[in-house]
Amino acid sequence: MIKYQFIQGGITAPSGFKANGIHCGIRKNKLKKDLALIVAENRCTSAAVYTQNLVKGAPLAVTKKNLSDGYAQAVICNSGNANTCNADGVEIAEKMCALVEKQTGISASDVIVASTGVIGQPLDVTPISNGMESLVKGLGDNSHDCAQAIMTTDTVKKEVAISFMLGGKECKIAGIAKGSGMIHPNMATMLVFMTTDVNISSAMLQKVVSADVKDTFNMISVDGDTSTNDMLTIMASGKAGNKEIVSEGADYKLFKKMFNVVSGELCKKIAGDGEGATKLLECTVIGAQSKKIARTVAKSVITSSLFKSAMFGSDANWGRVLCAIGYSGANLDVDKIDVSFSSSKGNIPVCVGGRGIEFSEEKAKEILLENKIVIDINLNSGRNKATAWGCDLTYEYVKINGDYRT
Amino acid sequence: MIKYQFIQGGITAPSGFKANGIHCGIRKNKLKKDLALIVAENRCTSAAVYTQNLVKGAPLAVTKKNLSDGYAQAVICNSGNANTCNADGVEIAEKMCALVEKQTGISASDVIVASTGVIGQPLDVTPISNGMESLVKGLGDNSHDCAQAIMTTDTVKKEVAISFMLGGKECKIAGIAKGSGMIHPNMATMLVFMTTDVNISSAMLQKVVSADVKDTFNMISVDGDTSTNDMLTIMASGKAGNKEIVSEGADYKLFKKMFNVVSGELCKKIAGDGEGATKLLECTVIGAQSKKIARTVAKSVITSSLFKSAMFGSDANWGRVLCAIGYSGANLDVDKIDVSFSSSKGNIPVCVGGRGIEFSEEKAKEILLENKIVIDINLNSGRNKATAWGCDLTYEYVKINGDYRT
Repeated sequence: MIKYQFIQGGITAPSGFKANGIHCGIRKNKLKKDLALIVAENRCTSAAVYTQNLVKGAPLAVTKKNLSDGYAQAVICNSGNANTCNADGVEIAEKMCALVEKQTGISASDVIVASTGVIGQPLDVTPISNGMESLVKGLGDNSHDCAQAIMTTDTVKKEVAISFMLGGKECKIAGIAKGSGMIHPNMATMLVFMTTDVNISSAMLQKVVSADVKDTFNMISVDGDTSTNDMLTIMASGKAGNKEIVSEGADYKLFKKMFNVVSGELCKKIAGDGEGATKLLECTVIGAQSKKIARTVAKSVITSSLFKSAMFGSDANWGRVLCAIGYSGANLDVDKIDVSFSSSKGNIPVCVGGRGIEFSEEKAKEILLENKIVIDINLNSGRNKATAWGCDLTYEYVKINGDYRT
Repeated sequence: MIKYQFIQGGITAPSGFKANGIHCGIRKNKLKKDLALIVAENRCTSAAVYTQNLVKGAPLAVTKKNLSDGYAQAVICNSGNANTCNADGVEIAEKMCALVEKQTGISASDVIVASTGVIGQPLDVTPISNGMESLVKGLGDNSHDCAQAIMTTDTVKKEVAISFMLGGKECKIAGIAKGSGMIHPNMATMLVFMTTDVNISSAMLQKVVSADVKDTFNMISVDGDTSTNDMLTIMASGKAGNKEIVSEGADYKLFKKMFNVVSGELCKKIAGDGEGATKLLECTVIGAQSKKIARTVAKSVITSSLFKSAMFGSDANWGRVLCAIGYSGANLDVDKIDVSFSSSKGNIPVCVGGRGIEFSEEKAKEILLENKIVIDINLNSGRNKATAWGCDLTYEYVKINGDYRT
């Protein structure tokens, strides 16, 4: 068992980082922050993954270019407008980086830039320009404000930080995330910004991130819609003072595991705060012939609108679990599938060998009325497993998305 | 222009068919019919397509076996229970065929059997057995009752019949369908039963059906969930007296076009009556580099929960159309995409060359408040096109599916 502990401080918990978030005026509502900044004391090794949607936000193109050398020193992100499908998108994103350089001295080419909000409405850079001075002036241990400024329809801010020992040094990894709707990541995720003070090369950092997202952020789904602006970035300051990780040894493995603790927590926060959600759904698939089958099955179940609606109604409609497994595209033996539901109120098997079994509807209802439901699926065909996270489908989801733009 | 006319009579409009539908007691609500029967005077050439879900209803296995010789003479179908994921499923489905033989003299191996309703609850054959005598006694021009008996959460019955001239003879094609939720067919569809009096070989009939569903039933989606019990069957009595169609000549082409008229109408009826739907969405893609790209794009748009919610709110959120095109998996040039919305109130372009253009929100709202909305997409990259049908996502969908089993 590797030891680590959750700590306070959010994105600025690792040594060498400051953050802030303000309302600059992109949003009409003055109570909603809309501009976030994270800066590092020194240039950091960095890594990132991006959406696989062919329609990509302009900020992604600029960030990709700026990260091509494996280094970054700041993140600037606005909410309220995605700066996507606009004729001047790249120009605006580059201006945002230039504004960071002007105000902080950090080179524009070391800036990660991101935007989230409505697609296809021109982003006016004026409020950002006007807000830069106070944004930079307020930099400090302000992870809360920073995490709030990247929120859109999120109802809670999402911050995680842990500390652990590596190479004899105390190390930290932290992350903030936003994501509530348009969540069905493909090789990347919502906006997730992470920091660490671990000393690690850009190449090793990228390797950890690329491998981890397959089991974490790519395994959450709120509504089956893959966003145009998904992005996860991490900056490593090296301030922990450990010997630089440059290959896949013990330190690499430890860092990878610790990274997974933070990413896994952020996933659950995102899925549980899905638009309109009242419940976090966790689908665990074991006994799969391959890792790919396990992932496909888990994700298909938590993506099914029918199953999500049943969970909203606390209805043990396991037939919809079988149905979603059946159309997932995974090649498997239906007659071997076992399914059970569980929550803090207990566990109830509902299907054995692909067939329904008798169970107490009363007990099932008691279990499903909780706000965190686990769907356990055993394919009984191998030794691979995967977990996916989602949420129920509710009236509120429809309400939020029926008139998002106004 | 090929001439045809819509006619009354539903599934019994073609010569040689009788139908009926009754309440036999599978459902508790005595006002809801739950057992349907269609019989032909003679053995008919027949064809079918089935769901691609790996979890398949037991009735599909029995129907497949019975249709393996290309002939059938009756359809029996119950609603209220899908007879799927039950240990005795095949046995029960075979009993249903045997009951038809006992009461009508039609060989059990010439019976198409289908079930629709809850998955994973044993289907008691007793009420079916008890109801058979009155079901058969009432056979006649009762397409209405038959179409009602196969309904589940459908709010309207779905019947279509047309007549046209072929080989100098008056010919008819008719169909009834059910389908409201769990609709995202893959190579087949909901329950669709069709009849025709055209004289056509089983092989040619199958060819027409298999080709047609790719552009019709496989292009509708209510909720992205592919059912376990999807099935489309057709019986051709040959009573129109035309020269048998045994190859792909002019008569084959005409029949194929006429079949498409009926299947297209049934698709719109199914999508427009999607669970909780207030609007029929029709997405037409033109200018695609391939037929496959056109289909993929059209289906991705009408499947997007975010876009469906926006349509419920009559919100011209075209960014979600672009987003759904971008993650569809189709390889295309985003910068060439034009999008416009239209309805009986007019047409409004909202996106040109992948970028938003200025438009009147007022005019857009007026157009989107109608109950049939067309989304026109031009990929400007080729000459292929496709149409997909869906519906908006509403509070009512969630309500219906939050507690379906009770």
